[in-house]
Amino acid sequence: MTQILKARKGEITKEMKAVADYEKLPPEFIRDGVAAGQIVITTNFRGRVKRPLGIGAGLKIKVNANIGTSPNRIDIKEELKKLEVAFTSGADTVMDLSTGGDLDEIRFEIIKNSPLPVGTVPVYQLAKDAKKRKKSFVELNEDDFIDAVEKHAKDGVAFVTVHCGVTIQSIERLKKEGRVLDIVSRGGVLLLEWMLYNHKDNPLYTHFDSLLDIAKKYDLILSLGDGLRPGCIADATDRSQIQELVILGELTQRAWDKGVQVMIEGPGHVPLNQIEANVLLEKELCHGAPFYVLGPLVTDIAPGYDHITSAIGGAIAAMAGADFLCYVTPSEHLSLPDPKEVKEGVIAARIAAHAANIAKGFPDAFEKDRKISMYRKKLDWDNQIKLAIDPIKIKEARTKNNLEKKDICTMCGDFCAIKRFIQNDKEKDFYKLFKQLHNYLPLSSE
Amino acid sequence: MTQILKARKGEITKEMKAVADYEKLPPEFIRDGVAAGQIVITTNFRGRVKRPLGIGAGLKIKVNANIGTSPNRIDIKEELKKLEVAFTSGADTVMDLSTGGDLDEIRFEIIKNSPLPVGTVPVYQLAKDAKKRKKSFVELNEDDFIDAVEKHAKDGVAFVTVHCGVTIQSIERLKKEGRVLDIVSRGGVLLLEWMLYNHKDNPLYTHFDSLLDIAKKYDLILSLGDGLRPGCIADATDRSQIQELVILGELTQRAWDKGVQVMIEGPGHVPLNQIEANVLLEKELCHGAPFYVLGPLVTDIAPGYDHITSAIGGAIAAMAGADFLCYVTPSEHLSLPDPKEVKEGVIAARIAAHAANIAKGFPDAFEKDRKISMYRKKLDWDNQIKLAIDPIKIKEARTKNNLEKKDICTMCGDFCAIKRFIQNDKEKDFYKLFKQLHNYLPLSSE
Repeated sequence: MTQILKARKGEITKEMKAVADYEKLPPEFIRDGVAAGQIVITTNFRGRVKRPLGIGAGLKIKVNANIGTSPNRIDIKEELKKLEVAFTSGADTVMDLSTGGDLDEIRFEIIKNSPLPVGTVPVYQLAKDAKKRKKSFVELNEDDFIDAVEKHAKDGVAFVTVHCGVTIQSIERLKKEGRVLDIVSRGGVLLLEWMLYNHKDNPLYTHFDSLLDIAKKYDLILSLGDGLRPGCIADATDRSQIQELVILGELTQRAWDKGVQVMIEGPGHVPLNQIEANVLLEKELCHGAPFYVLGPLVTDIAPGYDHITSAIGGAIAAMAGADFLCYVTPSEHLSLPDPKEVKEGVIAARIAAHAANIAKGFPDAFEKDRKISMYRKKLDWDNQIKLAIDPIKIKEARTKNNLEKKDICTMCGDFCAIKRFIQNDKEKDFYKLFKQLHNYLPLSSE
Repeated sequence: MTQILKARKGEITKEMKAVADYEKLPPEFIRDGVAAGQIVITTNFRGRVKRPLGIGAGLKIKVNANIGTSPNRIDIKEELKKLEVAFTSGADTVMDLSTGGDLDEIRFEIIKNSPLPVGTVPVYQLAKDAKKRKKSFVELNEDDFIDAVEKHAKDGVAFVTVHCGVTIQSIERLKKEGRVLDIVSRGGVLLLEWMLYNHKDNPLYTHFDSLLDIAKKYDLILSLGDGLRPGCIADATDRSQIQELVILGELTQRAWDKGVQVMIEGPGHVPLNQIEANVLLEKELCHGAPFYVLGPLVTDIAPGYDHITSAIGGAIAAMAGADFLCYVTPSEHLSLPDPKEVKEGVIAARIAAHAANIAKGFPDAFEKDRKISMYRKKLDWDNQIKLAIDPIKIKEARTKNNLEKKDICTMCGDFCAIKRFIQNDKEKDFYKLFKQLHNYLPLSSE
């Protein structure tokens, strides 16, 4: 029985308990969220994963890091390095999006070595392995799509992206309205190819019940993919994107009816002022199912800096109710990220998530900032470093500037406003003066 | 006569005309904005500056880059390099915040070499030079504060930060409520020291009329500084910050009454969910005066990444109505930025500004994104590079990955969704198929 079915019966499972402990929330809160479909819990895992992870309403914002090979860069060791960097930088999950090399072997290694729940996109393997067997991807039959999902579920994948909403209806809308960048989702374009060749609707849509049977069997989370996500600002919030979301809303309810956990994938490139509406639409059309957003990237003109364009969009989305941020690295639109870029991507997404956690009123998020600021007041660098999102970065900067044994930094030197308070306190009782200020200054007349 | 006085008489000056041309707006719009105090125009400049700059309501968001020495790092050549990098990276203004070395010489060199309007904080020089003369800063008299501003105005500074709102009233509020980080503004703490020592209110407040006389004489923009800006998330939007803003609102009206241009400085560290309210407060309390914000930084825990924490806050502030973003570099809280960090800071702030320009509906901002996306669709890298916010970054990434002569990138390789459309178009008429989609797919029943 899946977590969702147990929750509906009122049961608090050990997985719900573990999520509640981690989130510092009552177990009943987790149970009720899971029962309502507004919280998903990753239970299908192996390897080094120590605990289930909760994603959804009322929980802290989570961050996913995409890793995996491409046809042009196949190096398992580097992928395992990226996995480790994603973990140490603070990602909550990783997705193995490999499209080059022996995908079974790579997935096996990643799952074995991952301390985080792993997600995948099974259709990538279908496309890759069809090519390997000299058979065209479009010649695959409907069952192949379902079997690929089961194969990944068996391997211990916690969640899979399935692009069920790339259907005849949503593609028709795309055709009628037109787009600057058509389809930028790899899964989306693969399914469209298959549909065109076979003159049939998307097998992940027509055979959704079979998909649900597998998901139920493994308590696999279906992450309903956004094959029609906007690939540029001009295409955002258009009819095909929203049509797909409407369909995903219907599929969400079918999944819940069968007791299957789902989350919804969204955005891509979206202007600042449309982000909040996009989150609201998802929450309404999909009845509060957890929202997993890529970016959103708030401009198209900044390749090399898309971890920043995404951090801006991600922070706004998360504040508006998105639950799960898919990181974007500085190499987006340019190349497969290396470990250094993976770190940059994770940190940027975590900044967005943490800023939203503060805005949403999580006391421990706020407290972390208050504490580091208390240490900043004391010019206590050791403790600032401990609490910082990237301790190594600070240490390196201070070493580079020969500041290891100093209390200031080279920005202000003796002009440091904070230091002036402390110094004056020691030497001239200035801080005490400040504390008794109204005795020393004429009171205003009010 | 100042621009504001001429505008009120209905005159369209050559400076207003130049701003109108640059902004692609009617000159009447600029004139009316200047007359209302909602647009400021930089007219006090020398050196290489080619044109006046407009900042305010209805204009594109502008970006300022802080440069200048510190007591620990004095190198005019490096400062001129930072100036050049700020310009080539797309900053609209620079501020010389030097606090180390011969400040007159440094300011002279920066103004001479700057293609951008230059701002300063005259009180820094007062503090620095008082020390040089072995005289204490607190022993300066009120006239010294006013003279320092005139000295900078004479030199060709376009705008000066004057911390006029650090008054007995606002300091009393700070004392009563308490703060984690007290005062983090260097100017703010200097003025407080002077006030405590002299048992007098802030000379920039008590002698505000003399300041206005100078500003009027040179048509110098007074940037009313936020000496009580919050230095951490916990201190945001507190009573002293808002008290200072209330006072700045009153001073704004006094400036307008005398025909002096003003803008208001704000934020620092502010949680995501308080940014919009901060902008609204400034716009109401200061009757629509242009708002110049530092960051806002949306968390305290990310030293090394504060260009990102600021880009998040800056984008939201600009969308909400802030007019002028002061960049923050990755070295904020750690060290004086070097030229590389200046570039990172400018680009991050420009991303925030551009994202807000799109959100605010500027057609040419949107068009830039549409164009680069059209080239992305065509896998036309040369034109993508031309339109990108940092062409060099893209070129470097493609060289590093041996992609100069290829049309794809190493992220997806043959899996590239965009390429699949183009390739299929050539080889299998796929794109044509896609265009005629509804002929090939059974129509839905709706």
